[in-house]
Amino acid sequence: MGLAITGMILSSSIQTTLQRHQQLLDTALREAIDRAQASSETHALHVYYGQMRYHLGWVDSSQRPVQSNPGKLLRPTLLLLAYEAAGAWGQQAVPHPSSNSTYLERALPAAIAVELTHNFTLIHDDIEDGDTERRHRPTLWTIWGVPQAINTGDGMFALARFTLWKVLEKGVDSAIAVRLAETLDRDIMTIAEGQYLDISFEQRLDISVSMYLDMIRRKTAALMGSAARLGAMLGTTDAETIERLHSFGLAMGIAFQVRDDILGIWATSAELGKTPAGDIYRRKKGLPFLHAMEQSNAEDQQFLLDIYQQKEALQNNQVQQVLAIFTRTQTQQYCQGFLTQQCQHAHDALDSVPHLLHPIANRAREDLKTLIEFVEAAAR
Amino acid sequence: MGLAITGMILSSSIQTTLQRHQQLLDTALREAIDRAQASSETHALHVYYGQMRYHLGWVDSSQRPVQSNPGKLLRPTLLLLAYEAAGAWGQQAVPHPSSNSTYLERALPAAIAVELTHNFTLIHDDIEDGDTERRHRPTLWTIWGVPQAINTGDGMFALARFTLWKVLEKGVDSAIAVRLAETLDRDIMTIAEGQYLDISFEQRLDISVSMYLDMIRRKTAALMGSAARLGAMLGTTDAETIERLHSFGLAMGIAFQVRDDILGIWATSAELGKTPAGDIYRRKKGLPFLHAMEQSNAEDQQFLLDIYQQKEALQNNQVQQVLAIFTRTQTQQYCQGFLTQQCQHAHDALDSVPHLLHPIANRAREDLKTLIEFVEAAAR
Repeated sequence: MGLAITGMILSSSIQTTLQRHQQLLDTALREAIDRAQASSETHALHVYYGQMRYHLGWVDSSQRPVQSNPGKLLRPTLLLLAYEAAGAWGQQAVPHPSSNSTYLERALPAAIAVELTHNFTLIHDDIEDGDTERRHRPTLWTIWGVPQAINTGDGMFALARFTLWKVLEKGVDSAIAVRLAETLDRDIMTIAEGQYLDISFEQRLDISVSMYLDMIRRKTAALMGSAARLGAMLGTTDAETIERLHSFGLAMGIAFQVRDDILGIWATSAELGKTPAGDIYRRKKGLPFLHAMEQSNAEDQQFLLDIYQQKEALQNNQVQQVLAIFTRTQTQQYCQGFLTQQCQHAHDALDSVPHLLHPIANRAREDLKTLIEFVEAAAR
Repeated sequence: MGLAITGMILSSSIQTTLQRHQQLLDTALREAIDRAQASSETHALHVYYGQMRYHLGWVDSSQRPVQSNPGKLLRPTLLLLAYEAAGAWGQQAVPHPSSNSTYLERALPAAIAVELTHNFTLIHDDIEDGDTERRHRPTLWTIWGVPQAINTGDGMFALARFTLWKVLEKGVDSAIAVRLAETLDRDIMTIAEGQYLDISFEQRLDISVSMYLDMIRRKTAALMGSAARLGAMLGTTDAETIERLHSFGLAMGIAFQVRDDILGIWATSAELGKTPAGDIYRRKKGLPFLHAMEQSNAEDQQFLLDIYQQKEALQNNQVQQVLAIFTRTQTQQYCQGFLTQQCQHAHDALDSVPHLLHPIANRAREDLKTLIEFVEAAAR
């Protein structure tokens, strides 16, 4: 399960938001891997760190640099925006809002830690789900084998944690650094809990909507919540600001996943570059399926159960029948309504963050709103 | 690869050393898992945390409590002993040496973090090596499958890190807590590097002794080094003491592995409860094989290469021929000499730790010597 903003045609405003800090993040991410390799003091680990570079989209399987096809760096961007919205510049001299100047350096190690954490979970998820492709490239385990891929994920996890400590060199106090780490550790525990639930749900057909929402809250939303919270903790000591930005991140995490579920059924190919109803063909037990199961009559329930247990590939007419059940149960309206509600939570959380009258905070707030609006669009 | 003190008949002095803190450690370890499960606030994760309990030897696969067959808790014991040797009581009121009193509480979270770290690597190692048994029980992945086992290992890794932060509640300063975490993170990166090398060596027959030693220094010794270092950092701020106890831990880590390699070839069944020359039957490319490869003539080298690539199980006479080559290359003497040398490094490191005239430090020093002597015995 991943959040598919990659591969979509992004509107220019969300592109601007995501690109604002992209160069800075990309450079810092590369430095983190380079630094780890350098400290290993042996060329024998060139391919080991090369596996990390491969996963991150920088080299091919022979370690030759490739046209980069990196992730959108959504989580570290969220961290930096929360940092700015919470009052980043309060810690240092006020920079001009148009410059990517040093105040961002203070939050960069945490942003990189979050992105590495995200990518370690992707490496392990790909093994756990048996996925052979990610971002149109063979997954790490298909090239280097499952044993190395598990271990490279572990190394990236440790590197994520190690990278965080660079905040100390940027003037962050030990007492705050410890709280950052504790937050991230607890949230990674939560992510693993969510992944346990997700894997265990695969074998079951008795999953309720509320069980599913609890699962994605852990598996998907926890890290977005962490990103926003860590950024806020670096930007301010105000507990209210931190808590509200955390709520914002959690709501956005759930919203992104539900958006993904909606587009997996009702997106046109123009929007996604893939088959409409793709998640039905894949028999993905996302929010639409689970809602329809809860709301349909016994006959339709049985039909859905049969279809989702069927070993053979689905026929078009079967998919149409599933879509008809979704229509009878008003599943699209439900999902859109749920998404709208989550986005409203995100708006409310953001609006309740104490306002700071500073161009950087204002811009960050606008950028965070752009993120909500981007996700919200799938509810229409 | 694991260090096989389990399953051996331990001499009474090493038993006394290992048992001194065992109850305290076992209780704290169980509390760490219980606390994590409680904070998940759902019964749906009972089996998830149950997998951790299963791996740790407390319950069977149906979550029924079993006669515990836990590990020897070597690494956390090492941490507590280093803590005592470095001056644990200097931080608090001097306790009577016969009481397991509160001064140990201060180092317990780090000890538990190290033991959980060790166990997360074991869960993943078992998958990576395809091992179906550990401590005479089915490995976690054989019961819950590879996807869940990977993820449970990840959760235990996160829990290890999270548990460390309990030091703050025990009065450890944030600045020290951060350095503890940084040390552990760096050492886990090193362990993953070692595991990469170990897995990549499996497919190769051109591994030198020095490559092997570099591998075990990372894979096996790093965590023993970490344990001793973390304990020392909690016990004192004296850099010399910390560095020498770290050296002690590293030397012991290498020594334990080499001891394992020696016993894997030359132990009698009475000593190990397993087949002598077991590591030849298993075609394990440990120190004896690699030394023999480097020291033998072309004909013997070719014979070893053929044997270690042979698909069929080895015949007794083939094993005898390998042992004859080990004899011609004086491999046993070499390995014993190497082990003696490592133990001497450990003795030297320990002797150079600034002496503290206190019964607790003296007892800890004696216990650490007992550990060396236990390992050293395999060189005779």
